[in-house]
Amino acid sequence: MAEDIVKPERPGGFSDFLPPDYLARERMIRRIEKVFRSFGFDPVETPRIEFLKTLAGETSDTGKNIFHIKTTPDDEPLAMPFDHTVPLARILAANPYDSRRKTGIRLPWRRMAVGPVFRSDTPQSGRYRQFCQFDADIAGTASMLADAEIVAVTFHAMKALGVERFKIRLNNRKILNGLAELAHVRDRGEVRADDITKEMMRILDKLDKIGLEKVMAELQIEPADPLDTAPQLSDDAVRSIRAFLDLKGENEEKLRRCRKVFEGVAVAQEGIQELEEILAYSQAMGVPTKFAEIDFSIARGLDYYTGPVMETILLDAPEFGSIFGGGRYNNLVARFTGKELPATGASMGVDRLFAALTHLGLMDRSEQTVSQVMILRIAKDRDSDYLQMASDLRRAGINAEVCLIEDTTFKRQFNFAISRGVKYLLIRGEDEFEKGTVQVKNLETREQVEMPGSELANYFM
Amino acid sequence: MAEDIVKPERPGGFSDFLPPDYLARERMIRRIEKVFRSFGFDPVETPRIEFLKTLAGETSDTGKNIFHIKTTPDDEPLAMPFDHTVPLARILAANPYDSRRKTGIRLPWRRMAVGPVFRSDTPQSGRYRQFCQFDADIAGTASMLADAEIVAVTFHAMKALGVERFKIRLNNRKILNGLAELAHVRDRGEVRADDITKEMMRILDKLDKIGLEKVMAELQIEPADPLDTAPQLSDDAVRSIRAFLDLKGENEEKLRRCRKVFEGVAVAQEGIQELEEILAYSQAMGVPTKFAEIDFSIARGLDYYTGPVMETILLDAPEFGSIFGGGRYNNLVARFTGKELPATGASMGVDRLFAALTHLGLMDRSEQTVSQVMILRIAKDRDSDYLQMASDLRRAGINAEVCLIEDTTFKRQFNFAISRGVKYLLIRGEDEFEKGTVQVKNLETREQVEMPGSELANYFM
Repeated sequence: MAEDIVKPERPGGFSDFLPPDYLARERMIRRIEKVFRSFGFDPVETPRIEFLKTLAGETSDTGKNIFHIKTTPDDEPLAMPFDHTVPLARILAANPYDSRRKTGIRLPWRRMAVGPVFRSDTPQSGRYRQFCQFDADIAGTASMLADAEIVAVTFHAMKALGVERFKIRLNNRKILNGLAELAHVRDRGEVRADDITKEMMRILDKLDKIGLEKVMAELQIEPADPLDTAPQLSDDAVRSIRAFLDLKGENEEKLRRCRKVFEGVAVAQEGIQELEEILAYSQAMGVPTKFAEIDFSIARGLDYYTGPVMETILLDAPEFGSIFGGGRYNNLVARFTGKELPATGASMGVDRLFAALTHLGLMDRSEQTVSQVMILRIAKDRDSDYLQMASDLRRAGINAEVCLIEDTTFKRQFNFAISRGVKYLLIRGEDEFEKGTVQVKNLETREQVEMPGSELANYFM
Repeated sequence: MAEDIVKPERPGGFSDFLPPDYLARERMIRRIEKVFRSFGFDPVETPRIEFLKTLAGETSDTGKNIFHIKTTPDDEPLAMPFDHTVPLARILAANPYDSRRKTGIRLPWRRMAVGPVFRSDTPQSGRYRQFCQFDADIAGTASMLADAEIVAVTFHAMKALGVERFKIRLNNRKILNGLAELAHVRDRGEVRADDITKEMMRILDKLDKIGLEKVMAELQIEPADPLDTAPQLSDDAVRSIRAFLDLKGENEEKLRRCRKVFEGVAVAQEGIQELEEILAYSQAMGVPTKFAEIDFSIARGLDYYTGPVMETILLDAPEFGSIFGGGRYNNLVARFTGKELPATGASMGVDRLFAALTHLGLMDRSEQTVSQVMILRIAKDRDSDYLQMASDLRRAGINAEVCLIEDTTFKRQFNFAISRGVKYLLIRGEDEFEKGTVQVKNLETREQVEMPGSELANYFM
């Protein structure tokens, strides 16, 4: 037999959720869901397997580390989703609203999705390969009302989780695009201005990692060859960027100064206007100004977003990074329909948030079982009575289990109840049966009370 | 662009759950969960990807149609779970209880799991390739109290779903094993009695499909060659089996007659005793006798179960087959530990049940959105006020959304609200703002009432 034995191992990057973790996570997710549903975000679920072409598109999107499913050469290749956004795009494209038949998805639409996504890092990387993501998106409107709602719903979700010290940082891709104009980025021989701008964004994105001086220096480096996209900015241009990144003050102050820096740069002015709207709207939805902060240094996946971008950090656990981030993107369904659709949304790493809240002591993991009451089987040949007691309690809405260990001595059953983590013990021996009573022991307070059996259900209500 | 467009298709055998389906399914699953939790079944979640060796064991368990993940030759092969039982076995084996450190899983343990499982049928088969399964198992006890709980929890779950006409059919593998003894199955040359018994079970399992006479005839066929496992039963043996399968009457009557048929066959007597215990215990847990029915013709995956087996059918939708079935099995963790562990449990096909309940008209799919109230944006430059109204409602526990369509004419917004499926409309134009009032329209009753803005939240409570 021994040689046939398989080790009960789990591949690296995957997790089991045993009851204490499951219950704590469930509580966390339901709290978040409740807030999102209060804003009218409708839940959807899409499969754990999609066509590879749906996920990766025609281009080889290998940066996503997609898990591929083995299929026969005749079958269309299958793979596992790496996010909820691509499946959202697919269902939007596949279910356009039909006003005559009243079917399909009516836009604008607030949708949320919570569930696992998959990334095939090497098992050695130590990264999650399956992790739960909570997404909320609003598709079908270009209004800043939508972006402000994402900010508001983030704020209220954090509050519902008991987090008090956090910041939602906001920026706008349009302002960053204005930077390129400000820096006079132009076509240079074979190299297009657009690609130089992207390279510039990539360098700016390193601010947090390498610091302002190194970023500034890198922006001025000469191209190595005629096809190099190095921005090679002038001293003047770098000075403007420095002035921009140096903007200080409260939100209003920052935006006012920003307007000046980008005088005459239409795209940036538009971006500033949008941020002002978001701040006003989110305030009307109960977000105090100190929680939403304009921060011109945040960028977030620069090739993807087209407007406002946001990220949320925990002030007492910044090492966990952005736990809720996103922004506006308009290319959502284009891959499927050829048409753009305005959308905005954010995504939360549930496992990362769970780890961060645990770190902050905000995650109650003390609930070991759903069971509230354990009924000891003390008296002989009374099993049917014990089962009946359990049924009565359940009917009164109490989760009750009958002790199933083989050794029915009081001591063993008592210890078992302790290790199970139930709160109450019901004890009814021959004496109690004779008297028609039952003993209830609260294992937390160690109090024990005797009562008529008929009063049992009421005791717990 | 057109040539880069990907069709927004879903592979066959996979489902999207858009809001009406999602919400109806969620309601169904939560009702079932509530019943199981009331019995102390603790929820767990295991990953969607496991080591292939965990799922398939050392033998090539290809009958399960496992989805394999593409991995590099250096990595341990990965695959997707086809049920919740094997991952349950893995976590039991990986987390033995440590009484000193108070860690691990304390047995006996009631655990439930709800989530998708995967079977790689051909896309053309029309079968689900991902489907949601709801499992409940009790590991670590051989007591019939556990088997009776599975019956009771099934009964109460069906009731909670509003199903009134269903039957839980019970049998015992031990009685079926007794049949082989009764039929004097013995080793025959190279062929072992055990294998002949299995073949006999396989033939009996066809009762529903081919009928009694054909089954009886098949049991008597001569072996084609010396290695054929054909039972080749005697006329006497077939008469006994016929008498057994013909047993009629209420449960007690059936079991009493069964005792007679199996006089002197110890294993069958034990099986009968177990069924009697299950009936008595489940009755104590509130299962009326008419819902649990002894049925000697049910067998269920014969190589797997070792004791009582059960299945649940809907009397008004028998075509959906068994929607909740299981039984006792003792080989749960042996693959991982080399030791047997007694366990019993059952598994529900959530998608099949959902289809069956829809068919029976028991599935309310009318809820189109989580949103209860839509606030129309009628007055100009009043967006912040509308957002504030929404916030106030949310604070009072009401799910409220602000209408986000671009065309803010009353008619368009009104139609949008209708198509979204919200129940209430809030209308506040210039007039209402001046008077400090708001109009609430109930879209179901078409009633419209005007009230002071301050009374709004109360109206919905």
